[in-house]
Amino acid sequence: MHVIDLNCDMGESFGRYTLGYDEELMNYATSINIACGFHAGDPHTMRKTVQLALEKGIAIGAHPGLPDLNGFGRREMNISPQEAYDLVIYQIGALNAFVQAEGGVMQHVKPHGALYNMAAKSPELSEGIAEAVYKVNPKLILFGLAESELIKAGKKIGLRTANEAFADRTYQSDGTLTPRSKKNSLIHDDRTALKQVTHMVLERKIVVDGSVIPIQADTICLHGDGAHAVQFAKTISEGLSNAGITIQSLTHESQ
Amino acid sequence: MHVIDLNCDMGESFGRYTLGYDEELMNYATSINIACGFHAGDPHTMRKTVQLALEKGIAIGAHPGLPDLNGFGRREMNISPQEAYDLVIYQIGALNAFVQAEGGVMQHVKPHGALYNMAAKSPELSEGIAEAVYKVNPKLILFGLAESELIKAGKKIGLRTANEAFADRTYQSDGTLTPRSKKNSLIHDDRTALKQVTHMVLERKIVVDGSVIPIQADTICLHGDGAHAVQFAKTISEGLSNAGITIQSLTHESQ
Amino acid sequence: MHVIDLNCDMGESFGRYTLGYDEELMNYATSINIACGFHAGDPHTMRKTVQLALEKGIAIGAHPGLPDLNGFGRREMNISPQEAYDLVIYQIGALNAFVQAEGGVMQHVKPHGALYNMAAKSPELSEGIAEAVYKVNPKLILFGLAESELIKAGKKIGLRTANEAFADRTYQSDGTLTPRSKKNSLIHDDRTALKQVTHMVLERKIVVDGSVIPIQADTICLHGDGAHAVQFAKTISEGLSNAGITIQSLTHESQ
Amino acid sequence: MHVIDLNCDMGESFGRYTLGYDEELMNYATSINIACGFHAGDPHTMRKTVQLALEKGIAIGAHPGLPDLNGFGRREMNISPQEAYDLVIYQIGALNAFVQAEGGVMQHVKPHGALYNMAAKSPELSEGIAEAVYKVNPKLILFGLAESELIKAGKKIGLRTANEAFADRTYQSDGTLTPRSKKNSLIHDDRTALKQVTHMVLERKIVVDGSVIPIQADTICLHGDGAHAVQFAKTISEGLSNAGITIQSLTHESQ
Repeated sequence: MHVIDLNCDMGESFGRYTLGYDEELMNYATSINIACGFHAGDPHTMRKTVQLALEKGIAIGAHPGLPDLNGFGRREMNISPQEAYDLVIYQIGALNAFVQAEGGVMQHVKPHGALYNMAAKSPELSEGIAEAVYKVNPKLILFGLAESELIKAGKKIGLRTANEAFADRTYQSDGTLTPRSKKNSLIHDDRTALKQVTHMVLERKIVVDGSVIPIQADTICLHGDGAHAVQFAKTISEGLSNAGITIQSLTHESQ
Repeated sequence: MHVIDLNCDMGESFGRYTLGYDEELMNYATSINIACGFHAGDPHTMRKTVQLALEKGIAIGAHPGLPDLNGFGRREMNISPQEAYDLVIYQIGALNAFVQAEGGVMQHVKPHGALYNMAAKSPELSEGIAEAVYKVNPKLILFGLAESELIKAGKKIGLRTANEAFADRTYQSDGTLTPRSKKNSLIHDDRTALKQVTHMVLERKIVVDGSVIPIQADTICLHGDGAHAVQFAKTISEGLSNAGITIQSLTHESQ
Repeated sequence: MHVIDLNCDMGESFGRYTLGYDEELMNYATSINIACGFHAGDPHTMRKTVQLALEKGIAIGAHPGLPDLNGFGRREMNISPQEAYDLVIYQIGALNAFVQAEGGVMQHVKPHGALYNMAAKSPELSEGIAEAVYKVNPKLILFGLAESELIKAGKKIGLRTANEAFADRTYQSDGTLTPRSKKNSLIHDDRTALKQVTHMVLERKIVVDGSVIPIQADTICLHGDGAHAVQFAKTISEGLSNAGITIQSLTHESQ
Repeated sequence: MHVIDLNCDMGESFGRYTLGYDEELMNYATSINIACGFHAGDPHTMRKTVQLALEKGIAIGAHPGLPDLNGFGRREMNISPQEAYDLVIYQIGALNAFVQAEGGVMQHVKPHGALYNMAAKSPELSEGIAEAVYKVNPKLILFGLAESELIKAGKKIGLRTANEAFADRTYQSDGTLTPRSKKNSLIHDDRTALKQVTHMVLERKIVVDGSVIPIQADTICLHGDGAHAVQFAKTISEGLSNAGITIQSLTHESQ
């Protein structure tokens, strides 16, 4: 049986500022990553998002980011592994209290934006993050870029990990994502994206410039912003189902 | 047997800014209230303070405050009970993750500054705060101004509570603290403060303007800042011991 | 000749968060109040908004608020007159540098949200604000609630002032605004709002519960948020023009 | 006649947090760089520091930093030249309003910490910063690491610049500062530091590993923190005077 998880960043509103299509996207996502107040989100938004996810039975994860609200956590900052450890602990804890208060259980942690990208390449930062997750709760699943340093660090410390792949990003021949600075980094056509992601899940490979590249995908990222987000999620979710793939979270209990 | 807890605010440093005499005061405090990043404190400081407290065997509490770092959480803000609930949940959770990561257990929650003062007078705010504490963990002890609205709300929801009294603040004939705006609000002489606090613990009363006023004191506040803080703590701690009073945290396990 | 200014809050976006219909509303507003980074806005947004206003020839004002981004500056905070002075100086200066850099001139200052409301009632806070405006530049015009304490403080120190009135808020028989907590505080029908504002400008009075109340209106507030904002601004602007009223900023130079 | 300016970072306190020895160091500094609220400082501190500097007749400069209070502006952030431009404009403006309100004139701008270091190496960031300074006020002097990209960008746009050199940092044979990560980056002995700085000013060169290296020094940095700061400033100031060097700000008017 082929199974896949669809994850989506949520809870990115802040005070008077509303962002994203959380409620609609919860119809398609099986795991969500909730912002924890550093790059986005606030206590009110976190509670509302947790409540909504629990109502809908969707797996909840923390989405810790850099302390840069104005830059939405997308600007790299030169933080130490110890600083990464500290800010990940803090943010997981803050979200976890809302989950506990509502009677739920946190499933996973996925770093956000620049922290995610920096960790993907840095064994030291990844160790700081993985240790933070492990020490708060060794049952948490660590989400990271497929086969990145973050996944390696998670495995090393004894965490369950989830390799994340992308439906609407192109890959390079070495299996890494095409950087956003390059023109062809994004797949703008939903059908092409669906084709790529279906191939990933069924065959565990993708084709780049004619060559076949193995790829491990445990969870697919659904982007949460942009007017197109909901339609995109629907296309991917329905297309994967039609291809006979079961969409469920990583901790879905089989009957 | 007469017993009392001595609590002290700690972990108020922030980045490059160092505040307080945490390490020295841990020789006298039996419970500490750790700032959680809103009015003071940051992830790094929280971790270090938790580690130090666990080493020394001191009971750890969260010290949630208003989101006002520049005002040190001392300026009243017109927040709703729901907002109080949300920000208390968030801050308890953030600190709790550090406590968990270090293998400890959080004992209590004491609101800070303007949040503490506003809650003392407002049943609605107090309900928001008490519910937040209860829903995160019903075993947490809620610290509040002795016999204030916060203590009432805590009892009502089913929390264990701790009435806080002050050694170096004067009281009015109705049992409330003399407001800081009045000249005689503070007791500047350590001996007088020790006399007041000893009387409180042994007799459960204080004398104001010749009349005797009953007061419930489960924990005494040791102020953490000011050059005089360490000497004051030493005087109070030693003086109470010399008077035959046992100084221990509220969850101290008896032999 | 009857003239009136239409002012509108703008520049309230922040990083990834977009708010308001600045560009469309600049077709109707003759003065804008730009957020300065405390309750909303950021350096990038401030520059873009200043550039747009200068292109369109609209008068620019600073819109200083309380340091409460999460509460959008709408929660009252217990700040001192000295704190109000300091934060108003800071915010005027920050915006003014963008205006200078683009070759423009700042026209006015209008406090935002809770700061505006607190100042309306407090002579002390109003003095702090008025002094801040005066000391940065005595030629700035101070906008405040019509005939409020802020207007009085502005006049007293020697500033030109502008009485602000509202098209879509109801007034009480003592000439003050009906508090938002009351049901009938808002006028939901554009035609009724237009009628009220036209009456204000032409007759310098409004009718409340059958009695006629004098009102001084130098500038009318166009609300910038809500999906309805642009249509509302259009209705008010065109309606006033059709009634023979000249709409122009307070520093519009007559030919 | 040999002349030199001694500059010092100041105004780095924040709310409840006090940092530095501003008042004592103003006895030795002839120019000060005042933090503007992003990496340190707040409106209250800015006003007090400006007032003190004007009383003592010391030249005032803005000290804009990265938006990272918790990291004290010392962590590199991947900001664009446009973002650097925007945040420098904002911070210069904020400080300038306090200077104007007190009847003073701002003399210079010196970026802080990671912004200073990043600019030293990046022509693009330096252009953003230099343009910001120029557009707010072309008479401002731009302080930067001696002969760095920031100085080049300042000259190119038409600003007066000031090459900053260090008394207590060692230099490498290519004329750049020894990175702080290396063991011998700091000169711990005051006499050695005084010798280096005297040589710099009188001879416009320093000796590194036996070779003589030309160095341009218009202003010398006095570090403001550390218990040793005041004694160090005294030694440098008195030592330079004793060597016949005139210590004065760059805009000191000769008689």
